[in-house]
Amino acid sequence: MPPESLAHHVVIVGAGFGGVEAARALADAPVRITLLDRRNYHLFQPLLYQVAGTALAPSDIAWPIRSLVRGAKNATTLLGEVVSIDARQKRLLTSYGATIDYDTLMLATGARHAYFGHDDWEPYAPGLKTIEDATHIRRNILFAFEEAERSNNPAERAAYLTFAIIGGGPTGVELAGTIAELAHETLRGEFRNFNMDEVRVILIEAGPRILPSFKEHLAAYAKRALERLKVEVLTDHMVTECDAGGVHLGEKHLATRTILWAAGVQASPAGAWLDLPCDRAGRVLVEPDLTAPGFPDVFVIGDTAHVEDDEGTLVPGVAPAAKQEGRFVAEVIRARLADKTPPERFHYKNDGSLATIGKRAAIVDFGWVRLRGRLAWWLWGFVHIFFLIGVRNRLMVALSWLWIYWTGQRSARLITQSGSEEREVSD
Amino acid sequence: MPPESLAHHVVIVGAGFGGVEAARALADAPVRITLLDRRNYHLFQPLLYQVAGTALAPSDIAWPIRSLVRGAKNATTLLGEVVSIDARQKRLLTSYGATIDYDTLMLATGARHAYFGHDDWEPYAPGLKTIEDATHIRRNILFAFEEAERSNNPAERAAYLTFAIIGGGPTGVELAGTIAELAHETLRGEFRNFNMDEVRVILIEAGPRILPSFKEHLAAYAKRALERLKVEVLTDHMVTECDAGGVHLGEKHLATRTILWAAGVQASPAGAWLDLPCDRAGRVLVEPDLTAPGFPDVFVIGDTAHVEDDEGTLVPGVAPAAKQEGRFVAEVIRARLADKTPPERFHYKNDGSLATIGKRAAIVDFGWVRLRGRLAWWLWGFVHIFFLIGVRNRLMVALSWLWIYWTGQRSARLITQSGSEEREVSD
Repeated sequence: MPPESLAHHVVIVGAGFGGVEAARALADAPVRITLLDRRNYHLFQPLLYQVAGTALAPSDIAWPIRSLVRGAKNATTLLGEVVSIDARQKRLLTSYGATIDYDTLMLATGARHAYFGHDDWEPYAPGLKTIEDATHIRRNILFAFEEAERSNNPAERAAYLTFAIIGGGPTGVELAGTIAELAHETLRGEFRNFNMDEVRVILIEAGPRILPSFKEHLAAYAKRALERLKVEVLTDHMVTECDAGGVHLGEKHLATRTILWAAGVQASPAGAWLDLPCDRAGRVLVEPDLTAPGFPDVFVIGDTAHVEDDEGTLVPGVAPAAKQEGRFVAEVIRARLADKTPPERFHYKNDGSLATIGKRAAIVDFGWVRLRGRLAWWLWGFVHIFFLIGVRNRLMVALSWLWIYWTGQRSARLITQSGSEEREVSD
Repeated sequence: MPPESLAHHVVIVGAGFGGVEAARALADAPVRITLLDRRNYHLFQPLLYQVAGTALAPSDIAWPIRSLVRGAKNATTLLGEVVSIDARQKRLLTSYGATIDYDTLMLATGARHAYFGHDDWEPYAPGLKTIEDATHIRRNILFAFEEAERSNNPAERAAYLTFAIIGGGPTGVELAGTIAELAHETLRGEFRNFNMDEVRVILIEAGPRILPSFKEHLAAYAKRALERLKVEVLTDHMVTECDAGGVHLGEKHLATRTILWAAGVQASPAGAWLDLPCDRAGRVLVEPDLTAPGFPDVFVIGDTAHVEDDEGTLVPGVAPAAKQEGRFVAEVIRARLADKTPPERFHYKNDGSLATIGKRAAIVDFGWVRLRGRLAWWLWGFVHIFFLIGVRNRLMVALSWLWIYWTGQRSARLITQSGSEEREVSD
């Protein structure tokens, strides 16, 4: 039996930003690593809206997990889901029937979009968390234009040419901007039976302003930038119903066939596997060292964890936070195995936030510098290309963006899946 | 009412090579054009096997139809299928309920793969004609490796690591070559629980040799090139059964979980819409000027038509033939409208054939020159990039190929669709 089979076994569930970062940070540690994910790829979620908006192909922002950890000879990648965890036996049961014993377990299983008790809205207002979500939304958007082209009924056509995006956070803003540009720039001149001026893109936010996590003057700039792209921004409007006919905002009704949901997330059910205390969004209330309460050998990180920063504020569900947590846990594991005192407390470092509005405007807040406009857009582009994985994808995405920037043409305008020419209401 | 609504109305059903070529050739003719397709994109089918083999993304080889004919102001693109045709009224009924009246109709609806009376094999041996076929096959191939990694049963693992390709024409040869290279080059070093030397790629051909449409010495070279890639070539082997356990070849049984079908095609049912005489593969037996017998205003072209060349041989179902036919029909329509004598007979010009075996070998037969080996491979690459549509896709595909050539890494190794980690047996 090879000696590595005796080594301390770290099982990482979920190969998102946190899980992959942890696996890489443990590549040369005296451990065996098993990386389990229900997908065979790691996804760069911050650009998922660009797949939905036909600007990028799914493979531009996804990498085979086993290729990312190919160099870590102590790491095995397995495709599968967790069904249950037996913490006493330190063993988890997988969806394909095998059990995996662990010495240390890291749960990094992410989050899904949530409908705050209105799950019946999901078929009409799909959210954006997976590749399939993105190609489904892409399909809905492109199909709406096709339906408008072949419709002879003005009211029906207007409903097909109205796009409602619910939620004024970065995802909603970015989706609204990309749909507006798709209509007014990419698709211009390609339809014969309607005019692109009939297109309405409406961003709906329940709160008093969009982008509440940004400084007020940056959010105000973003609103103006959206309006320049002909997006209607409706703040202080609470959605009361979504159905096949459109969106209800109290008394107001918006007839639309395309509603996109960007209003909230719910953590994956990792907390339920160990019956852990969770916050309202299902995030596990972890200890300061990111262990699960009562389970010192189980860590919970990323969007699955409720982590607070030094001021007691919730650490946001963003990639840099998950990566920092993944590195922190790797450090704790290394210290424990070396019989050193592990760090007691995770400290979140805010690397700043960025959001883009179409292809010429963005807002950037690094704390020490705040930018908006065209320069911010270029910075946004460079930062995202820098954080993409691999030279090839950086090159391809950079080329795609420059191409769109110069020509307005987008490369991935495909209605795929399901094989037929019928529009799907849901997955 | 605008004057163009009075113009002669040409309805083209199917935006493959023939349909798009015809629409473009009629862009400045005194006609209105309606281009109807059940997809929103034109597909470059000759490279579809590269999507199945994870080398290219679907959007690399697909273009929005309406974008291709954007410049033809007399052309309207509609998404939909034909349900039936009333030739007396010169009217067709679409899947979305509208009727379209035509003056001239062009049927260019292509072909599907066929199982020669064994349709029950389809779930076990999917074929390759659409983007969904390609991502489905990609999924099956990648999933087989994942199953092998997580299996503890040697016989099961061997079945997952065996890939059977049925049909020794260009598609079968190209699929076998790309799967062999995927295993031995791209995936090498990424799995921990099996050795890539356990992988078997088997190309099965019922006839005495592969690539029967090529000269014998070129086909013999292709066989040697495949064997260098560790592909086993089984000629003179007739498949008698495909099921979940593998392929039966008479007495012989091949245990495999991945069977790919590249053995035959069946024309689309366009012939049935007008009750036209067809050959055994469902191709309409057209007149020498490509009109349907008895319907001088209906043309049938491409893979849907049985066309013979000047020697009485069947014109092959390849892109150059469909394009030539599309241009020919446009010429006939123009002549008729100008009250000139239209050409009476379509003459097929054989532009040559090419096939590639992996990324370093190909065979080329232009008639006046025959090549094999590395130079043929580069020529194959240049020809295919030349015939791709648009500068962007040429650039992207060329870059992808050079990247694979140098690094062995492929960009689209994604298991997508269906959202779960379960393997699908069929669509």
